[in-house]
Amino acid sequence: MKVKAVFYHAGCPVCVAAETNLAKAIDTSRYDVEIVHLGKDSTRISEAESAGIKSVPALLLDGSPFHINFGANLADLK
Amino acid sequence: MKVKAVFYHAGCPVCVAAETNLAKAIDTSRYDVEIVHLGKDSTRISEAESAGIKSVPALLLDGSPFHINFGANLADLK
Repeated sequence: MKVKAVFYHAGCPVCVAAETNLAKAIDTSRYDVEIVHLGKDSTRISEAESAGIKSVPALLLDGSPFHINFGANLADLK
Repeated sequence: MKVKAVFYHAGCPVCVAAETNLAKAIDTSRYDVEIVHLGKDSTRISEAESAGIKSVPALLLDGSPFHINFGANLADLK
């Protein structure tokens, strides 16, 4: 079974760079990668917050949050 | 030819978590991943700085620096 990976972003330049480089580098034979745009799908902000995500871009890997550089605070997307 | 990926860390708990989860998630069929411990190999700090890395853990993917959460400033490793 693949490990769940969720890449949360908000379409910002820092987010796009992280998606293009880092999210794309993940081994899709072992990880099931989902890309979530929190600016467009704000209903999922609370899910990201519950997982411990404070800013975007961020990658949730097997339940662990990893903030990648800094694009925007989650609080500012509401 | 594989893309070069360098994971810089300093053995801190945040670094270990990032290495265990994120660095290990990279597709090694497409990326050549090198793990560098800047605490043990301080001669490579200047290389990391030149690449735009400010803190560890960080991942340099195809020349682009991605800071992952925050463990320590590069300046504090000197």
